[in-house]
Amino acid sequence: MNIRPISEHDHAPIVAVVDQWWGGRQMAGLLPRLFFAHFQDTSFAIEEHGRIIAFLIGFVSQSQPRQAYIHFVGIHPDHRKRGLGKRLYELFFETVRARGCDTVHCITAPINSGSIAFHRSMGFQIEKSDHVRDSLPFTTDYDGPGQDRVLFVRSLA
Amino acid sequence: MNIRPISEHDHAPIVAVVDQWWGGRQMAGLLPRLFFAHFQDTSFAIEEHGRIIAFLIGFVSQSQPRQAYIHFVGIHPDHRKRGLGKRLYELFFETVRARGCDTVHCITAPINSGSIAFHRSMGFQIEKSDHVRDSLPFTTDYDGPGQDRVLFVRSLA
Repeated sequence: MNIRPISEHDHAPIVAVVDQWWGGRQMAGLLPRLFFAHFQDTSFAIEEHGRIIAFLIGFVSQSQPRQAYIHFVGIHPDHRKRGLGKRLYELFFETVRARGCDTVHCITAPINSGSIAFHRSMGFQIEKSDHVRDSLPFTTDYDGPGQDRVLFVRSLA
Repeated sequence: MNIRPISEHDHAPIVAVVDQWWGGRQMAGLLPRLFFAHFQDTSFAIEEHGRIIAFLIGFVSQSQPRQAYIHFVGIHPDHRKRGLGKRLYELFFETVRARGCDTVHCITAPINSGSIAFHRSMGFQIEKSDHVRDSLPFTTDYDGPGQDRVLFVRSLA
């Protein structure tokens, strides 16, 4: 198993599989090539036997440089429960802390209970929200009409 | 007419109209809120009578900081041919030059002849490509399967 910075060459193989990794949800549209071209120093892939089995796309906020943002994480369904997500997040935390960030932000869909549990286990807290359902605070229409999101933040202090 | 940095509050009104501005093409998916939250210092909106009539989303490449990238430009159909695109691009050039960039990159679809003519008029040249059709060089599958793109670059020297 090898963890390394993402490269532009990773774009094609990742968009070819990512919808399948997400159980058929249309996710590839969230991964335009620009993320693989311009955020290589805070985005990572994990390879095993020459194939990518997990990746993280993140960046330092350009206009709020003490904030870091995790845009997308994908893990091959056969390689879950191995701690790959934890490893990617910890490498990201370390990388952006070294660049002067003091918080990490990310969002997820309220329906994505696996993601919510994962982020809580990684020390994230839910920030500002306008609704609560089943004890879960979330923000309606955060990413467009009907695109409710849970907003997470984690201190790096 | 007022030109100003983009803000997070601009996300909802822009995604509500952008598909219509593009003649019904599904474009809003290319504008997740993150661009309005984290790239405010190199992204701009033009307002007139309190409404946004044009905007540009761009950033400095984090991993190649001498490169700048223009991700998305939208102009209200009733306000074309007024030089708004030119004004947005010139402000972007000036802003990223001051941040140490020496080139600006962007991409467009080979079918988008208006965009191609605009970029040529703004001093962009077409960079590396693997196909030529009707004298137009482009790169096949650049942004995923079937997503051919014309790759533009412009020197800021």
